[in-house]
Order: sequence, then C-alpha cells, then structure tokens
Amino acid sequence: MQRWKLTLEYDGTQYAGWQRQGDQPHTVQQRVEEALTAFCQQAIPIQAAGRTDAGVHAAGQVVHFDLDYGARPLSAHTLLCALNAHLRPQPVAVIAAERVAADFHARFMAVNKLYRYRIITRPAPPVLDSQTAWHYFKPLDTPAMQRGARHLLGSHDFSTFRARECQAEHPIRTLDRLDITASPYDPYGAQDIVVEVEAKSFLHHQVRNIVGTLALVGAGKWTPDDVTTALAARDRARGGPTAPACGLTLVRVDY
Amino acid sequence: MQRWKLTLEYDGTQYAGWQRQGDQPHTVQQRVEEALTAFCQQAIPIQAAGRTDAGVHAAGQVVHFDLDYGARPLSAHTLLCALNAHLRPQPVAVIAAERVAADFHARFMAVNKLYRYRIITRPAPPVLDSQTAWHYFKPLDTPAMQRGARHLLGSHDFSTFRARECQAEHPIRTLDRLDITASPYDPYGAQDIVVEVEAKSFLHHQVRNIVGTLALVGAGKWTPDDVTTALAARDRARGGPTAPACGLTLVRVDY
Repeated sequence: MQRWKLTLEYDGTQYAGWQRQGDQPHTVQQRVEEALTAFCQQAIPIQAAGRTDAGVHAAGQVVHFDLDYGARPLSAHTLLCALNAHLRPQPVAVIAAERVAADFHARFMAVNKLYRYRIITRPAPPVLDSQTAWHYFKPLDTPAMQRGARHLLGSHDFSTFRARECQAEHPIRTLDRLDITASPYDPYGAQDIVVEVEAKSFLHHQVRNIVGTLALVGAGKWTPDDVTTALAARDRARGGPTAPACGLTLVRVDY
Repeated sequence: MQRWKLTLEYDGTQYAGWQRQGDQPHTVQQRVEEALTAFCQQAIPIQAAGRTDAGVHAAGQVVHFDLDYGARPLSAHTLLCALNAHLRPQPVAVIAAERVAADFHARFMAVNKLYRYRIITRPAPPVLDSQTAWHYFKPLDTPAMQRGARHLLGSHDFSTFRARECQAEHPIRTLDRLDITASPYDPYGAQDIVVEVEAKSFLHHQVRNIVGTLALVGAGKWTPDDVTTALAARDRARGGPTAPACGLTLVRVDY
C-alpha cells in the first residue's frame, strides 16, 4: 500500500462543493475518486485538507489516499498525467503528486491554510474574471476595510462569522493573517480587491462572512469599529451577509 | 445624431471573432449590435478599432457608432448600464461609454494597440485560467525568447508572420514594444509567461505567429538568431506555427 498526496486545482462553479453527498452527483470529491477508479480499477476514498463549499474554487487543495499498486513502480509524473487524462475536459486538475509517509494526513496534519477572496468593483459586470470574483457595483473604501479587519486578527470566538450549520466543536479560531490589498483604479474605474486570510482552520463560511461584513465597512454602511462590536456579540445575526462563493479560492495548504 | 465611443471587454471563446459574417451567427459585433437595437429600436452599425479572430479576447476593444436619440439627454452611465443589461448573461460587457466628436473614428484614429499573449507552462492543464492562456507542457527558456524577440522590434516586412488570408495592402509593420515577462516558478513547477506587443496596427495573425515562433526558441528547437533568418525570408512557410487564439487578448487601444 502506498500513500499519495495530491495537490488539486478546480473551478468550483459547476460543483456542489468538495464533499460527496448522497443526493448530489456533482461534487469535486466524486469527480477525483472516479478518475482514480478509472486509472487503477479500485474504489479509493480520498481525504481532503478541507471541504470547500458549492461554487468555491481551489488553486491548491490537498488530498491523500492509499493506493495498492502491487509490485509495479509508479512515478509521481505518471500518476499526475494519468489522472489528468481521466479528468478531461478539466474543471479539475492534479497539479502535483507526491508519495508520502503512511501516517501523512491531509486534514489533521495541515498547519496553515491560505484563502483568497477577490472583489472587482466597477459599474460593468466582469467578463474575463466573472467566475472567480465578486462583482461590486460601487467603489469600496479599502483603508476602512483594513481598519475593520485589524479587529479580527488573532484568537477570538468567531460565532458572529460562523454559519448556523457549522459542525465545528467550538467557535474559537485564530486568524494569523487578514490582508486587504487593492489595485490602483484602472482607466475604466475598476478596482481589483484581494482579501487574503490565513489560519490553521476555519469555521464554516467564516471567510465569506468576514468579507461580506468588511464590504459593509467599505461601502460606508458600517464603521470599522462596528466590526469589533459585531465580533463581541458572538451572534451570527449581528454579522454582515455571506459574500458569494464565486470570489473565494483555497490557495494553499501548508504541512 | 450623437457619436459614441464604447470600450468593450469580451470572452472570445464561444465567438467566431469580432466581425459579422453572413454564415456565422455568433460574432461579437452582432451581439453588441443586437444589444444596441434592443436599447434604442434602431439598426445601428458599429465600427471597431480592429477585428479580433475567433477565440481571441478583449479587455479594451474600442468601437464607435452614431445614435439618433432625439432631444432626450442620454448619459454615458445610462447607456453603459442599459447595454450591459441587454448583454446579460455576459460574455461581452461595456466597460466605458463616452460621447465623442462627430469625426472620431475607432479604427482610423487609433495610434497604438496593446495585445497580450499569455502562456502557462506546467505538466497539468490549466483550470482557472484555461480559457485565457495557452497551455505549454514543458518549461520555456524565456531569456532565449527575449533575445529572439529583439530582432522583431522596429519596422520590418513581416511577411513571415502574416496569415496567407491577410488583406492588408502591404506587409510592413512597426513593433514599438515586444516584451516577454515570466513569473517565478510556483511551488508546482508552473510558470506564467506574458508577451506584450504594441504597434499602431498589426497584420492578420501577426501576434500569434510571432508567439508560435518564439515558443520554438523557448523550447530549444530554434536559436534566437533563427528568428532573424525567418524574418529576412519574408515567407510564411519559414515562420513558426500560429499560437492558439485562446491566449490572446486585445488589452487597449490608444487615440
């Protein structure tokens, strides 16, 4: 038995999220497991670093699985190319494959995850980036968003930013990084805003609820200090709305 | 009569190019003209700065047209929003609208155009950028490509890089800029290569034929000096292949 680690890129637009669900045929997990089965004629369950929601993308999701490949040698390059052939036409691709120790675990051994949320502000709807960014019609005050974001860094009870259906045992999480960077306005009045968030683990919808709340600050409907008040309330009803899934990408998982 | 200038973004993937063709229902020109007709109930022909080929994208195509809007005032913002509403669901959007002088001409008054060609080199097929980049399986030697590109700067007879069906009166063009920039390799061995080309005007397929030729240099099949020899031959048969349309974007037109 060999344990393998794969790094995956996927466009989540057409998928009901990462995790296999009985009544949902279109999940990324099922797509990758079917490619594995087509390659090695075995039904192999795979374990991901984290579930991504319906419509959320990945540039570096990590999974592991065990493969009984007999005595034949299997190179990482062969596995990568074979799986990508079975995944054609891609909205999912294997971008790295690596043989790992038998005790490697994609979820439990992850020490850090980086999520990126992208917002495009301009009057016209995005075209070339329409599937990977949230379209906001008006400019957002990114310095105000940065001031609001500062209150969320570090360890807190994030109940205000936690989906009601979240299954985590407790609402305490530690944000190690929450950066908001904005491009200069382009000649057509568009701005590209990127929110990058790093933590060991996240609550369900945590990043999207934070972005939806910071957008209220950027739009001038909340002050930066209102974010502190909302956090202290430990009540989802006191947080801002959930930003759309399409803007979110799981960029990297570190071990 | 009012003359208007529009700046357009479009994803060319599903279109048979910019220009209306009798037997081709899916052209960007037709899509925009239909939106204009839906907005103002007139059949209005539009003139673009340049035709883009089937599958080629635009981040800043420019067009003009004349609109008889009667005595009613029409703001640029209203026109932009109305056309974008008629263009839904977008693969074409109006990103800027501007009232211009009656003698403005999108094609004849253009003094400079910027095209960008994007190549992603890595073993795995691209996913999130699959529609806007050429996938090259192996690394390319970008310093060698840069040396080859230098020979093409300035005014030359570009017959070697001109499509056989090109309708331009002569094959002389002046490249004012031909830059190749490469990102650092990412952790998965991928590199993002961007070729930016500026000129007042281009021959048919000129950018794609240049990129296809420089890729031969990057792959080590040609030396940088072979580009000079090919250029001097003034013979399309001596040039490299035409790079795929999907990697090319018309970024900007200057007046």
